[in-house]
Amino acid sequence: MKRNIYLKMIPLEEAVARAKNALDRQSLVGVETIAVERATGRVTAEPVIARYSSPTFHGAAMDGIAVRAASTFAAREGAPVRLAPGRDFAFVNTGNRLPDGMDAVIMIENVVMDGDTTAIEAPAAPWSHVRRIGEDIVATEMILPRHRRITPYDVGALLSCGVYDIAVYETVRIAIIPTGDEIMDFTLRPEPGPGQVVESNSMMLCALAESLGFSARRLPPVPDDPEALAAAFESALSSDVHAVVLVAGSSAGSKDFSRSTIARFGEVLVHGVSAMPGKPSILGVCRGKLAVGAPGYPVSAVVCFEELLSPVCAWLGRAAPTCRQTIPVRLARAMPSRLGLVEFVRLAVGRVGETYVGLPLGRGAGMMTTLTKAQAVTRIPADAEGVEAGKMVRAELLVESDDLDRTLVAVGSHDNTLDILADMLMRQDEPVRLASSHVGSMGGLTALKSGAALLAGSHLFDPETGDFNFPFLAKHLPGMDLVAVNLALRHQGFIVAPGNPKGIRGVAELARPGVRFVNRQKGAGTRILFDHHLRAAGVDPGQVAGYGHEEFTHMAVAVNVQTGAADCGMGVYSAAKALSLDFLPVARERYDLIIPRAYLDDPKIQAVLAVIGTDEFKARVAALGGYETQLTGRFMAPGMGLGE
Amino acid sequence: MKRNIYLKMIPLEEAVARAKNALDRQSLVGVETIAVERATGRVTAEPVIARYSSPTFHGAAMDGIAVRAASTFAAREGAPVRLAPGRDFAFVNTGNRLPDGMDAVIMIENVVMDGDTTAIEAPAAPWSHVRRIGEDIVATEMILPRHRRITPYDVGALLSCGVYDIAVYETVRIAIIPTGDEIMDFTLRPEPGPGQVVESNSMMLCALAESLGFSARRLPPVPDDPEALAAAFESALSSDVHAVVLVAGSSAGSKDFSRSTIARFGEVLVHGVSAMPGKPSILGVCRGKLAVGAPGYPVSAVVCFEELLSPVCAWLGRAAPTCRQTIPVRLARAMPSRLGLVEFVRLAVGRVGETYVGLPLGRGAGMMTTLTKAQAVTRIPADAEGVEAGKMVRAELLVESDDLDRTLVAVGSHDNTLDILADMLMRQDEPVRLASSHVGSMGGLTALKSGAALLAGSHLFDPETGDFNFPFLAKHLPGMDLVAVNLALRHQGFIVAPGNPKGIRGVAELARPGVRFVNRQKGAGTRILFDHHLRAAGVDPGQVAGYGHEEFTHMAVAVNVQTGAADCGMGVYSAAKALSLDFLPVARERYDLIIPRAYLDDPKIQAVLAVIGTDEFKARVAALGGYETQLTGRFMAPGMGLGE
Repeated sequence: MKRNIYLKMIPLEEAVARAKNALDRQSLVGVETIAVERATGRVTAEPVIARYSSPTFHGAAMDGIAVRAASTFAAREGAPVRLAPGRDFAFVNTGNRLPDGMDAVIMIENVVMDGDTTAIEAPAAPWSHVRRIGEDIVATEMILPRHRRITPYDVGALLSCGVYDIAVYETVRIAIIPTGDEIMDFTLRPEPGPGQVVESNSMMLCALAESLGFSARRLPPVPDDPEALAAAFESALSSDVHAVVLVAGSSAGSKDFSRSTIARFGEVLVHGVSAMPGKPSILGVCRGKLAVGAPGYPVSAVVCFEELLSPVCAWLGRAAPTCRQTIPVRLARAMPSRLGLVEFVRLAVGRVGETYVGLPLGRGAGMMTTLTKAQAVTRIPADAEGVEAGKMVRAELLVESDDLDRTLVAVGSHDNTLDILADMLMRQDEPVRLASSHVGSMGGLTALKSGAALLAGSHLFDPETGDFNFPFLAKHLPGMDLVAVNLALRHQGFIVAPGNPKGIRGVAELARPGVRFVNRQKGAGTRILFDHHLRAAGVDPGQVAGYGHEEFTHMAVAVNVQTGAADCGMGVYSAAKALSLDFLPVARERYDLIIPRAYLDDPKIQAVLAVIGTDEFKARVAALGGYETQLTGRFMAPGMGLGE
Repeated sequence: MKRNIYLKMIPLEEAVARAKNALDRQSLVGVETIAVERATGRVTAEPVIARYSSPTFHGAAMDGIAVRAASTFAAREGAPVRLAPGRDFAFVNTGNRLPDGMDAVIMIENVVMDGDTTAIEAPAAPWSHVRRIGEDIVATEMILPRHRRITPYDVGALLSCGVYDIAVYETVRIAIIPTGDEIMDFTLRPEPGPGQVVESNSMMLCALAESLGFSARRLPPVPDDPEALAAAFESALSSDVHAVVLVAGSSAGSKDFSRSTIARFGEVLVHGVSAMPGKPSILGVCRGKLAVGAPGYPVSAVVCFEELLSPVCAWLGRAAPTCRQTIPVRLARAMPSRLGLVEFVRLAVGRVGETYVGLPLGRGAGMMTTLTKAQAVTRIPADAEGVEAGKMVRAELLVESDDLDRTLVAVGSHDNTLDILADMLMRQDEPVRLASSHVGSMGGLTALKSGAALLAGSHLFDPETGDFNFPFLAKHLPGMDLVAVNLALRHQGFIVAPGNPKGIRGVAELARPGVRFVNRQKGAGTRILFDHHLRAAGVDPGQVAGYGHEEFTHMAVAVNVQTGAADCGMGVYSAAKALSLDFLPVARERYDLIIPRAYLDDPKIQAVLAVIGTDEFKARVAALGGYETQLTGRFMAPGMGLGE
């Protein structure tokens, strides 16, 4: 089987430079003349000269009367100067032209009428309250330089000085071609079956391109066939675009034909960048146009787009490359990394006290939820071997900074009720965004300890006392003043396929050959519960097939059972119900929100407490199935157990 | 004449709150279902639930072979485990589904083939290099909460989990009606004559609205006639918009009908806000829709739009209000302000050393160039009476922060050659934006002294020594290590109307009755030159009509003469030539760029020095007329004078 060999991986900056050096933007991206009213966001191709002055006359800056300043110089309080209409003064409104010879305006508030005449009690300084000719714009002056992205303000200035048409660079046009045998075309609204994937990268990249000021066109998907790819690529190349992107097929796999396709019609400049995700990115030049091979994994495709295609296309269009606001972020968890690669890590970020705290989201290049859930992204430099927990890093904001102040980062155990809470928090007049990092109950407590979160979800059962959470708080977070507010009681048990075909009745069956288990990650309350039951039943974890297969959420456990990848996993009833699976109850447990008392007054925490106290919240939770809400919203105390 | 009485001015926040309280957004802004591929930038009306999981199968995360992990546990270096194709392993590419029963992937780089079989020398951990079912998205989970502005990333996630349509709030639609007797309709591409103004606010506000995510429609202008305004307003109100804006006519002038128009069809909630510019803003509710009376001055209209209309319309559409990045800026000049008003001041900002330094641009509410030239805007709170020079303020960025690092703030004397320099600097591969603050030569030196600028333009003539600039540097900036680089020699003189109708032959004529002078501001090199010649001729400034009429640029002086508002002003030949005026030479002078030696290595300064050394620059300067370039680009020394 033929496989591609990577070129040596090169840094992103070098890759961008190679592409720029190989492209002749002067020839590639032309200039067009358009109406100024349509020019917002376009880039000027020439300096723009004012055709008319603004103002074109001396005008009143205030409502009042226009006068000759000299005629008022003798005016004093108690010794007014009388002015006659027409000869000495004229009423003017803001913006009116001053009559010839008049060179000052007295504000109407200071005008006392006596019949037709007026009595002025203070001198008017020359040019007071007058907008003078040319004080703003003078004809023949340069209004805008070239290579300037036109703003709405610029549109106003241009029209006001008589510029109605403007020479701008063409908008950079990009064709995006999704490739692959296994993908389904989203425009057909397919219903994916087992093993099938709905292709979405192409549309995501189109939308990304448009948001960056380019113009993008998504072409129909092409299978992993060299001839079909060549035909589609050449067709796009021959059209009026400036760049063509092949999505997927850029790696070293046997079906990766992007490189050979690009090489067929031009020259491959870059195959491989020292960045993760995004490594197998390809840049080339074909017939004077930019060619890009974007990796198939969504996050990799995004990095390829944002770090390679975007700066090159901005340069083509003579626009400054987009830059995001950066903020200092304290890392709540260590981020490992490899030497020699720049690693892009997306973060959930919220404000805790005076600091922004960041929780790294997953690194998987295929994890679309890291793209949708992240508030920021940081880069670990190539010369670093990871970053320790607690360190400050600079992160690029993916949302507006105001958003962060409205973002509540919840760390800890995942529960489906958090989705309900998140939805109701967004409905408020002052919406709060709930960003969740699912690291398990113990991970949540650790985050509280290090000051990395305002609240943590936890459902840790202590068999010795029969109590929930408090024994763990006392042991692991001694000295911290914490409260526990109940979110719900929930039913935990074994999730099995409908009809329970493997006949699982309890923990003992899990050691049977042919029964495949799917576990939760270490530190999850559900894992702790399961291990407790294993021990109680005298079952050795080594006898349980799949004990090492760890998932991070109830839903992931459930879907493993649903698809037959596993026969059984421990999880909450609502997860089983959601996927129409059977459920064998094992225990009821208390899921609490652990909150440092010092943060109880935080408006975001107040919002959470308000929401979970409502009847609506309880009703929606109850409707999920497998929850009881009699303790919901109440502050717990040590020893309360299930409150019965 | 009837004039409006203002309501009591209220703070911006209270004005926004009043409007929100009076609007029923639930009824006003509806929900529509659109295709996900068109949903970027729209706001979700409901939480969005995943229809399919992603991935829907265990898939290979790397190219390689899929195996049963357990079958490899005995593998050791030197004691390999042999696996047979089909039975024990299968080749997989990234993204391929793992065959049933297989639960690990060995990377292709680690696979050694021996004929058809492979020899594995290290055990594969279960689930290594496997993308597991549901690790990203699981069906029934919430992908997006409600009231979320959809990003390109979200579009990708939605399509990948089978969501093809989405319920979003309507885009908020705004009708914008320009009003006024004196305005000209830009869509007709008019050529304004004396006293006429091309109306441009309406288009600027339309473009602003679109850039904020709203939809805006500009309607034809309506004259200052109550019946015509009522008809246009009611017609817009009856259309399918959510808000109607009347532009101009919101003050207390006799032609200000916005308030009465709005009152006629609904209720005026706000007339007057405690902000400057923007004070005479009006908010109302008419037939359940938002009504806005925007002031006629461009900067006032912008403040009304950004501080009142925008937050209310964002709230209508359930979107978070737009917020800009803020940066700390050191004020180079004091900003006076009045108690009781929030004052918005636009700033030219550049980086000087480690700090951002800001120069306040003009305060005039009609100054469109403050809108086009500002990099940031700051607010002086209502309880402040100005801000002292040197103080740090927080300013909202109007450009991207990278832009500031590429912005060179030039303070001092204005010259038309700066436009040429600005244009050539933008043409570079690494463009430099030249932001100029015209405060005159002395103002420029003051800015250098306070560390507020990297370079200053100066042409100060010292009659005692016959030298330029250095005597002033020695006197006012002793101890600073500065260099002077010549930009050009230029011809100064009296600018008069074509044919010199008033027969002005020299300074003495300026004292003649009927001759109106237009002066330059104190501190300008041209003003100093003029005062020198007055003194030399023994003419008392008090005898010169118009001596107190001060303009800030050569072009402003020239346009006063062109329009007949003055008969004569002192300025450079190129300004006279630009407006086809006559010119009486008085002196040649040296216009230098004064630069602290410490900044000579700054890349932006280096760019300036490179540009002014080119033949192209000298040729373009020479073409303006009235310049000599034999010293251009050369470093000056004390005593050089004109270099002859």
